[in-house]
Amino acid sequence: MVQVRVEIRLKKGVTDPEGDNVHKALGLLGFKGVQGVRSSKLFLIDLQTKDARAARKEVEDMCRRLLANPVIHEYAIAIEK
Amino acid sequence: MVQVRVEIRLKKGVTDPEGDNVHKALGLLGFKGVQGVRSSKLFLIDLQTKDARAARKEVEDMCRRLLANPVIHEYAIAIEK
Repeated sequence: MVQVRVEIRLKKGVTDPEGDNVHKALGLLGFKGVQGVRSSKLFLIDLQTKDARAARKEVEDMCRRLLANPVIHEYAIAIEK
Repeated sequence: MVQVRVEIRLKKGVTDPEGDNVHKALGLLGFKGVQGVRSSKLFLIDLQTKDARAARKEVEDMCRRLLANPVIHEYAIAIEK
């Protein structure tokens, strides 16, 4: 089994309302040194294969077809084990 | 400036509806080898400090007070740069 870690980030320049609100809330809670917060999604996907290269290719396909929106997202794939 | 990466995961045993739905959707799209999907949140926080140890402590405090729900979440903090 291969475990793949997929990070789905907003592209630079895309507004991140969740990150902005967390930033604001941290300020209200008294955390004054926060300069910025960006939020992103992480998926851990267990694949029934032993071929790390095939796993990466398959997960790239998953990102294109389901997990990421190419207009606003970029993604990073890492093979965990 | 220190950039801190915070991963907010669901604890083991906590139902992950988003992960389960992604798993189901991947199956419907023809990805047959998926054994499981877990979803989690990631925050990149820029802090106005140069002290990595102080930054970690501050972000732990943020997790306890805002970012994570201790009933269902666990978190991992990593100093990026």
